[in-house]
Order: sequence, then C-alpha cells, then structure tokens
Amino acid sequence: MKLVFDKASLLKSVNIVLKAVPSKTTLNILECILIDATAEEITFTTNDMELGIETKVKGEIIEHGMIAINAKMFSDIIHKLPDNDVMLVTDENHNSIITCEKSKFTIPYREGDEFSRLPYIEKTNPIVFNQFRLKEIIRQTIFSTSDNDIKRVMSGELFEVKDHMLRVVSLDGHRMSMRRVEVEDHDNTVKAIIPGKTLNEMLKILSSNVEDSLNLYFTNNHVLFEFEDTMVVSRLIEGEFFNIDQMITRDYETKAVVNKKEFLNCIDRASLMIKEGDKKPIVMQLSDGNLELKVNSPMGSMSEDLDITKEGRDLMICFNPRFLMDVLRNIDEEEVSIYMMSAKTPAIIRNDDYTYLYLVLPVNFSQM
Amino acid sequence: MKLVFDKASLLKSVNIVLKAVPSKTTLNILECILIDATAEEITFTTNDMELGIETKVKGEIIEHGMIAINAKMFSDIIHKLPDNDVMLVTDENHNSIITCEKSKFTIPYREGDEFSRLPYIEKTNPIVFNQFRLKEIIRQTIFSTSDNDIKRVMSGELFEVKDHMLRVVSLDGHRMSMRRVEVEDHDNTVKAIIPGKTLNEMLKILSSNVEDSLNLYFTNNHVLFEFEDTMVVSRLIEGEFFNIDQMITRDYETKAVVNKKEFLNCIDRASLMIKEGDKKPIVMQLSDGNLELKVNSPMGSMSEDLDITKEGRDLMICFNPRFLMDVLRNIDEEEVSIYMMSAKTPAIIRNDDYTYLYLVLPVNFSQM
Repeated sequence: MKLVFDKASLLKSVNIVLKAVPSKTTLNILECILIDATAEEITFTTNDMELGIETKVKGEIIEHGMIAINAKMFSDIIHKLPDNDVMLVTDENHNSIITCEKSKFTIPYREGDEFSRLPYIEKTNPIVFNQFRLKEIIRQTIFSTSDNDIKRVMSGELFEVKDHMLRVVSLDGHRMSMRRVEVEDHDNTVKAIIPGKTLNEMLKILSSNVEDSLNLYFTNNHVLFEFEDTMVVSRLIEGEFFNIDQMITRDYETKAVVNKKEFLNCIDRASLMIKEGDKKPIVMQLSDGNLELKVNSPMGSMSEDLDITKEGRDLMICFNPRFLMDVLRNIDEEEVSIYMMSAKTPAIIRNDDYTYLYLVLPVNFSQM
Repeated sequence: MKLVFDKASLLKSVNIVLKAVPSKTTLNILECILIDATAEEITFTTNDMELGIETKVKGEIIEHGMIAINAKMFSDIIHKLPDNDVMLVTDENHNSIITCEKSKFTIPYREGDEFSRLPYIEKTNPIVFNQFRLKEIIRQTIFSTSDNDIKRVMSGELFEVKDHMLRVVSLDGHRMSMRRVEVEDHDNTVKAIIPGKTLNEMLKILSSNVEDSLNLYFTNNHVLFEFEDTMVVSRLIEGEFFNIDQMITRDYETKAVVNKKEFLNCIDRASLMIKEGDKKPIVMQLSDGNLELKVNSPMGSMSEDLDITKEGRDLMICFNPRFLMDVLRNIDEEEVSIYMMSAKTPAIIRNDDYTYLYLVLPVNFSQM
C-alpha cells in the first residue's frame, strides 16, 4: 500500500474517527484505525462495537491496500508532523512507514481483515436535520442522562419522531429534560433510545455551522448519522422508555417568572455554602413579587432576594442547587417560567409552546 | 469592624494573598486571611510559615477592627458576588457578614491576634528590579529545580548578586539552568537560595508589564519582594549551593548551531516513540552540516535529519528528550549553539555573552 495525504485533511479525518476508539479495551484490534484503499477511495474506520465511524479521506492512492494501524500512535504522529504532504507506505515486514519532509516513522501494522466492519444500514427515508440544531438539542438535554446500570434506558436519550416533530428526552430519576423541534419532509414515526456516549461523541463531531445538514436513519437496532464524508453508526439501547407524557401536567398552583441570569448567579452563590457531596438543599420562599433564596449550613448562611412575577399561591420549596443550575445553563431565553404544584411535587420549567420542558424534583423538608 | 470595598479591587487583593495560603495544613489559622483595619489602612495578610504576603487593600473603614477569615471561603464568595460595593461587618456572635446588593453571606471569623504576623525585614539597600524581567528569568530557570528532599538546596534557586550582575541558577542532578542579567545601582554582594515554591508563586503574582519595578531585600534568613501595595516575604533555604563555575567549561570538541524551533519540533516528534516513564534516550549523530536524530523502541522507530552548522569533531551522543525540550522551550532566540566535549560529558547550550547557559547530562550508551 502506498498513499499520499495532505497533512491538514489527514488530521481532520483522524480526529473524526478517533471518537470511536475505546480508551480501554482488551481487544487490541479495536484500538486501530482501519485504512482501506482497496477501491477507488480511501476510507478510515473505527469501531468500539457500540459505536462505529467511517469517513472518506482525501488522498492519492499510488498502490492499493488495506491495513489496521494503532489509532493513538498514528494520530500522535500526524499531529506532530510538519504541515506538508504525508506518505504512508507498507513494507514486507509488517511495518508501516510514515514520512513527511525529512521525518520518518516506522510502526507495525495489523492485517485489515482482522478488523470488525460496521453493520450495514439500509439508507431509506432519511430524516434530514440541521447539524447545528441537532447539536444544540443534544447539548441542552444530555446532562440529565444517568450512568445507572440497572436502568439502562436512563443512560440514553429518547429520540421520538411523530407528526413532523422530533422530541428528545432524557431523565435520571431526579430531573427530566425535553426538547422539541420541527422536522421537515418526514412522514414516518420513530421511537428509539440512543446511548448517551454516542451523543456525547456526536457533540464533538457535529459542525457548528447552521448551513450544514445531516441524514438520520433508524433501524430496529441501530441509528446511522450521515453527513459530509462521514457515517456514524451506533447501537440503540433496548427496552421501553418511561411514559413521559404521564409526568407532565399543565396544572399549577404557583407560577414564577424569573430573570434567568440573576436566578442562576444567585443559586451559584448560595451553593458556596454547601460542601461538595453534601446533599443540603437550598430553600426558596416565593411570595408576591419576591423570591427569597436561603441556605444554612455548618459553613455559614446565605440569603438573597430576587424580583419575580408570581401568580397563584405563596410557596416554600427546596431544591438541589446543582439540578436547577444544570437546567438554567441550558436555556437561552432571558426569562424563565417555573410552574409548581406543591413543595413535594416536581417543578416544571418550560416555555409556552413546550419546545423545551425541564422537570426537577424538589427535596423534601424532612430530608433537610 | 465595618469595611466597604469595591468588588474589583477586593478581588485583586484576595487573589494576591491567596498565594500564601497552604492547600493542606493542620493549623486552621493558616487557612485564614488576616484582615487588619486597626489603623488608617486596610491590609490583608496570609502566612504559610515559609512564605508570607501582605497587601494594602483599597477600601473605606467605617469602623476599625481586625479579624481572620477563612481564605478559600472568603475568596469563593467575593468571586461570585455581583460587581458592586461589598460590605464586610462583624457582629457580637463572631460572625462576619458580607453583603453586596441583595446578597448576604454570614460566615464565622476568628480573632485576628491568633494569626502569625510576618517576620520584620529591615528595608535598606534594595535591589531595584524590573518585574517582567525578573518573572522571565525565574520562568526560564525554575524548571530544573528538584523536589529532592535529601539535597534541599536543589529545591531552590541560587540568587547571586555580584559586580552589578544578578545570576539565577537551578540544578537537579541531570541539568542546570543559569541566567544572568544586569542590576543597576547596587554595590553589595548577595548569595541566597530562594525556595522554588516561593518563586513559583511569584510567577503568578508578578506583573507582566515592563514598566513595573520591584525592590528586593535580602537578610540572612529571608528575602522580601516589595512592589506596588504588596510585600512577599519568604524564608531562604539554608546551606551551601553547588560550585557552579567548576561545572562550566569554555572548551569543546564539537559545536553545533541549530534552528531552535526545528530542533524542538524534531525532538518532540521523536519522543512519541518513547513511552511515558520510559528512560529511553534519543540518539544524535552529528556530522558536517547534518544532525541525524534517531530513536528505536518496542513501539517503533523514528529518524530525522536536520541542517546544522557544525564545528569540530563528528559525535554520536544520547539525551533524555525531555531535558533537551525543557531547555529549548525556555530560549527565545531563533538559533542555539550546543557545545560538546564527548558523549559522556555534559553538553552546554549557551549564547556568546553567557547571559544564558544550560547544561544537560547525556545518557550513556551503556544505559540504553
């Protein structure tokens, strides 16, 4: 095999496929990038058996071939090479020789056919999506996934397509995040749970350019993200997701409208009085026009008043400050509305058209 | 006590004195900032018994007093307060109350007289120094101090003032760093070892503005850095420093002049073939006009040629790549000259007027 790449585009491709290289594995071949130049194009593939990535790489094929090469070592070398043409050649001793200007690296390769190829996904009926928008709704919901091994579905996010809307939901037993967004040109319905790990990697790969689009394909067991020269295939999580709609009520006894930034900064300050790992809640006392936020701890105490617009009954309610901050950090709007029934039922932070809805369980007074 | 500060200047002062707050100590009082407003000015003092910092703080004294307050907690609170006036008041229950806009924190304080004051240093005959220049020569030499507990002097840097020159030297048994710089208006001679820890903190405190100066005062046991509103006092390390001049020779058998950036990048690439923690050296083969750099390891091999200007004999010599990179990263010049006697004697990287000189021990072939 003999290939020539431009360093910049080689580096870009390597960085993409690196996302599916497991950091720890007993299976050495999974630590490799499959470099396939048997046909007319060069492709790089990685596969950690949950998540797989294949990308087409710009480059010249002088001699066809296919090898698997240690991903970390290959990536480290490419990173540090001068900005110039990079040549990759194999010799008869199972060595791959990487040269660039006067620099020459020799590292062993493995046979390409040891490598596990990606599962085949039939590409029919794509859901066409804006990359930036998809990235945004993943970021705005992924924080409430859980590593809970017993309830596997909690470690993923529900992707539900119905009536030209995509709904993305995650929950971890203390809070739930939901974002809805319109999808054009798609009549099918989808209900699938994508692993949080896959979505975290997608956050790193997806473009932040609002012009770029991608195609989503779902099968019973897999999801395929297809964009530019890259395909990302991930297993889906098996099982039934929770019945979300049952958790969401439109009723409320108390509604408060708060400036988001002031509220966030205030909770951030209050949390200074809570030691890390301590489950102490902050206390919110809602009355007409005023939210008093308080915390008392062995470290000291803090209190602060915030101007709000309140509807309905006065209420005292306690929260884990981190859960509230996570939500507020993922809302772009200047003002947020909080809907509450009682001190013991979940508070809902949502906008009027339900394109976002966050649910946070309060902390019981008895637990204080 | 009742004091009012502007948040920005309060934060600046807190950040300065924080540098002498030990991260781990059994003596709680050392975790405090002493806030002294007994006289006409407000001063903050911290002291970890090796290093002490005192700084004057801009603020209004409404009621005199003196307290010691937990440094980390106070700093965290100040950081997160809104940008406005901050009031600090004490009450009769040993509480200090910090208020800013509608935010109010209550944390306990300790009596100020529990606090260990800084040692008194007589301020005569200062060495006047440019802050930026001092920061530079500390940064350019401190990397070769050692944590060696047996040879305490290795954990510090020699500061030697003689004949209107300041010489700063550090060494760790594998390499030595030396920088010289002119000092104006000082006729005394000084020879003192300043702890590396002190100098590391000075790097964070000193201004990068070339206009700012500072005064240095040495006593038998202490050094005092005085600048703007701040005094930093540090113990000196006791003992005799090594005889540096004996290690430096002007003789050489081989001299190579190399482009610094190319050389550094080349060594950086070569070190990819050496596992972290592995003591494998890189091999340098010097001949007329060419430096061949090689490394062979179980991971693979690397070789690269560099254009150089060589004087004297051909030479093959081996180095720990990290030691060479540390030196090259701290030289600003575009070209460096390396002077060597043999493969078993230290290589010297220096300029013609000896304002910098770095010495690096080679690795024996037998250890390879």
